[in-house]
Amino acid sequence: MARDRLIYLPLGGAGEIGMNCYVYGYGPEGNERLIVVDTGVTFPDMDSSPGVNLIMADVGWLIERIDRVEAIFITHAHEDHVGALGLLHGQLDLPVHARPFTAAIARLKLEEQGRNPDVVHEVAAWPASVQAGPFRVGFMPVAHSIPESSALVIDTPAGRIVHTGDFKLDTDPVVGEPFDPDSWKDVARNGLLALVCDSTNVFSPTPGRSESTLAGPIADLVRGASGLVVATTFASNVARLKTLAQAGVDAGRSIVVMGRAMKRMIAVAQATGILTDFPPTVAQEDAPRMPRDNLMILVTGSQGERRAGSAQLANGKYNGITLREGDMFLFSSKTIPGNEVSVNRIVNAFSEMGVEVVDDCDGLYHVSGHANRPDLETLHDLLRPRFLVPMHGEHRHLREHARIAADKGISSVIAPNGAMVELTGNAPRVVEHVESGRRYLDGNVLIGALDGIVRDRIRMALNGHVAVSMVIDEDDEPLGGVWVETHGLPDPAGREHSLAELMEEGIEYQLQRAGDHVMTSDDALEELITRAVRKIGQELVGKRPECRVMINRLVGG
Amino acid sequence: MARDRLIYLPLGGAGEIGMNCYVYGYGPEGNERLIVVDTGVTFPDMDSSPGVNLIMADVGWLIERIDRVEAIFITHAHEDHVGALGLLHGQLDLPVHARPFTAAIARLKLEEQGRNPDVVHEVAAWPASVQAGPFRVGFMPVAHSIPESSALVIDTPAGRIVHTGDFKLDTDPVVGEPFDPDSWKDVARNGLLALVCDSTNVFSPTPGRSESTLAGPIADLVRGASGLVVATTFASNVARLKTLAQAGVDAGRSIVVMGRAMKRMIAVAQATGILTDFPPTVAQEDAPRMPRDNLMILVTGSQGERRAGSAQLANGKYNGITLREGDMFLFSSKTIPGNEVSVNRIVNAFSEMGVEVVDDCDGLYHVSGHANRPDLETLHDLLRPRFLVPMHGEHRHLREHARIAADKGISSVIAPNGAMVELTGNAPRVVEHVESGRRYLDGNVLIGALDGIVRDRIRMALNGHVAVSMVIDEDDEPLGGVWVETHGLPDPAGREHSLAELMEEGIEYQLQRAGDHVMTSDDALEELITRAVRKIGQELVGKRPECRVMINRLVGG
Repeated sequence: MARDRLIYLPLGGAGEIGMNCYVYGYGPEGNERLIVVDTGVTFPDMDSSPGVNLIMADVGWLIERIDRVEAIFITHAHEDHVGALGLLHGQLDLPVHARPFTAAIARLKLEEQGRNPDVVHEVAAWPASVQAGPFRVGFMPVAHSIPESSALVIDTPAGRIVHTGDFKLDTDPVVGEPFDPDSWKDVARNGLLALVCDSTNVFSPTPGRSESTLAGPIADLVRGASGLVVATTFASNVARLKTLAQAGVDAGRSIVVMGRAMKRMIAVAQATGILTDFPPTVAQEDAPRMPRDNLMILVTGSQGERRAGSAQLANGKYNGITLREGDMFLFSSKTIPGNEVSVNRIVNAFSEMGVEVVDDCDGLYHVSGHANRPDLETLHDLLRPRFLVPMHGEHRHLREHARIAADKGISSVIAPNGAMVELTGNAPRVVEHVESGRRYLDGNVLIGALDGIVRDRIRMALNGHVAVSMVIDEDDEPLGGVWVETHGLPDPAGREHSLAELMEEGIEYQLQRAGDHVMTSDDALEELITRAVRKIGQELVGKRPECRVMINRLVGG
Repeated sequence: MARDRLIYLPLGGAGEIGMNCYVYGYGPEGNERLIVVDTGVTFPDMDSSPGVNLIMADVGWLIERIDRVEAIFITHAHEDHVGALGLLHGQLDLPVHARPFTAAIARLKLEEQGRNPDVVHEVAAWPASVQAGPFRVGFMPVAHSIPESSALVIDTPAGRIVHTGDFKLDTDPVVGEPFDPDSWKDVARNGLLALVCDSTNVFSPTPGRSESTLAGPIADLVRGASGLVVATTFASNVARLKTLAQAGVDAGRSIVVMGRAMKRMIAVAQATGILTDFPPTVAQEDAPRMPRDNLMILVTGSQGERRAGSAQLANGKYNGITLREGDMFLFSSKTIPGNEVSVNRIVNAFSEMGVEVVDDCDGLYHVSGHANRPDLETLHDLLRPRFLVPMHGEHRHLREHARIAADKGISSVIAPNGAMVELTGNAPRVVEHVESGRRYLDGNVLIGALDGIVRDRIRMALNGHVAVSMVIDEDDEPLGGVWVETHGLPDPAGREHSLAELMEEGIEYQLQRAGDHVMTSDDALEELITRAVRKIGQELVGKRPECRVMINRLVGG
């Protein structure tokens, strides 16, 4: 009989920030019982995934072993941890465990996709726990930028694992439980086999600041404002919303919340009892009629998202509100790399309106939800794990985190997505590389990132598209001319004819010279025409377009 | 007779960073004689300009008044100041004035486009000057991140203007003339009408650091390295290249320069006598055979450009060189907003190879070429201009710069691209808005940004493309079926047929129900088919594709 082993396998989130999806397994080699931690998404961009709606981990490896998978555990309700649950649950039809706030969001994700929300089970905070095959899993509260974030305490026959999820050390997180070193020490009092640890902020050299440090500066800022005040932050940062709203109320302003995601998060936080003292708000329909200096609006769109409140205000009007000279707009957020251009577009639009834009350049109005390097070290020192496995980070983050562990004499390993790590040995080591990758929600269809569909769209974006249609008669002779339609292509400079006309001419010239073996073969014709289109495109406008050829043959009769 | 006036008109660079192009005019209103300062480009991105090669200011306003334009002055040889010269000179066939290094690059730009390089005239540094209509223009040396940058001292009948170009205050710039407050004071000793001033770094709160501060840290870094050392910076930063190369030589390493742009800049700087003591280099063919610890390579691609040296090394091999564990890669540069994702991709690829990546997070290995806020104030105070016109910056930068001037009691104005400012009055004020915008070099054709060509490509990238072809016989009846070709579109989930087949079916169904008036009208048919394609796309895969319809009608005979 094969010996039992404990494995860790990241399918998403290791080698990137976002799209978290991790697997643990215990049992005989190749026949382990498995659990899944988080089913997150990441977001598309024009460079690599134009037109895509959402990106998630390819969980094909799990689906092939679905009879061995016990359950899904969700650490917290951020999109990059729970966003793919509804989309994947059709194939991963498993019980889901989460704390109440996260469970409420998880149920919404399932309902959105027409799945049964009753598979979600609520779990109380550690020391409560759930048995799932050989694993017993507890939810240890941690501070982050969303309520009820949890580290998982995973007991296995081979020892205890702490999987941190996303976390920071905050002794006064405004909403939720403060960091308590003693309870962490208690978790590790009988020894900790492995700490599987968030690496997002490993390059931030100074200790992280508490959410509570923002209340004063934000209150001062709002109190000093004279016109309308609008603030944005991440919709799920309920503690921040509370701080912002309280600053508004303290400055004698009524609070209006705009944006579906933000309203939903507040509603769920109130319904689950996490948020008990959010200031009273005013209906958004009333906002346009209120005196500007008595009003503070909280809106979505801190990352410059096209359809969110911030972008709509920058475009001119949103829910009847137009910003103007003397108003203030606060980004209580940081700009995630890749979103700089979108955010700057909004800032400049506000600048043109005369709106004073306040961002977090001075660090006064935003703190990160992730543990910085010294905080990571504090946790390492508190828990003193035998192994440290860095997760949730780009490769450079995982590498740096592993280096820190090595400096402390803790055995570590860099395990990007697809690298299966065995934790039952003298050191963690990669024992297998499994196929991993990305799936796209494209429109309403799930496709593979490498299916070629998105690649074709990128090529059209770069090179344009040419469609060619022609009719060939019963004698294999062209009937009428060749028809070319270009899309997204310029016409050549200084020519009387359009690119399409010049392509038609060029193709017809080629056809006249082609032999019968070409005219009778659709494949040969298509090749000849495609080659002509690319060559003429390159010569006349410097582009080699995508090409589709449609040959209509008349059949005798 | 209309009174004479002095005008300033930004056509590019005001309301953005990049694509600099400014106009000054003096003479009777509406009949001023004009000069152009800089003809720069900016770079495309997938979000707004996929497939575009270069972006430049629309100079249509100048072309319409070409008989009134005297000359073009180039402040320095960065792409965002000189890059469009060759492309625009066909329509702006004017003498070009620049200092020798800049002139050499300007000539290359003209030659690349098959234009006559002899239109470029070399001008010595201030107090030398050139007369151009009512303007006398001198080139006042300033420090920047490329040799021979100049502020223009523009004498007009209405008074003196200083147009800073891009600049910083550097008393030890490694290459070129140090900042000398007395010579600046001298320029303004008889009073300065207007300072038209770079705003790029107006949000940087601390005084800028000198290029010379980098030599020590870079030398220490290279001396401490054990494997191969590769460093990248902006190809045109000749001073930095010298510092990097010297650090290599001092550590006993041979220097190899790789990348066309970098070699060209060094060659031009040497040919124009600016760079006299660049260390000897080794041919790149010899690099693969040299001991790694005796070699330092300088490469292009500090912004993650796909084809440049850094990206190629990240992909595996470049000119016979492959990086590996123990090597070091230094980014002696900052990442320009929008390039974060490309640069991070490279950093992570190096991380996977085990290469130590050093970037400028600690500020040790790169300094900016632009004046920070305190430096701007130093210049304001030295020159004490009557008017301050902020240029080269996004709207938020111009606004902040104008605010600083206002705080000093200097009259200012925010003039984004297209805003014509009159400088002959009690305060600078916008007197007219002229049509401005962007032109794209798309393949080898110049197109307008709003021509719809790039918009169509973006739509294809987001929504895919469908081409429909059909044959209609002499009796206005479809002959054979409808033919649909999809491109960049997924097939619907859980269906036996492809999207193209289902669209064919759906269109044929619609055609059967359509009356004769549809079948006889190509417009009506096209509308019916396009509508059916979009509707079916939306229903089956959640996408409304771009559509091209090609109806082949057989004519009787």
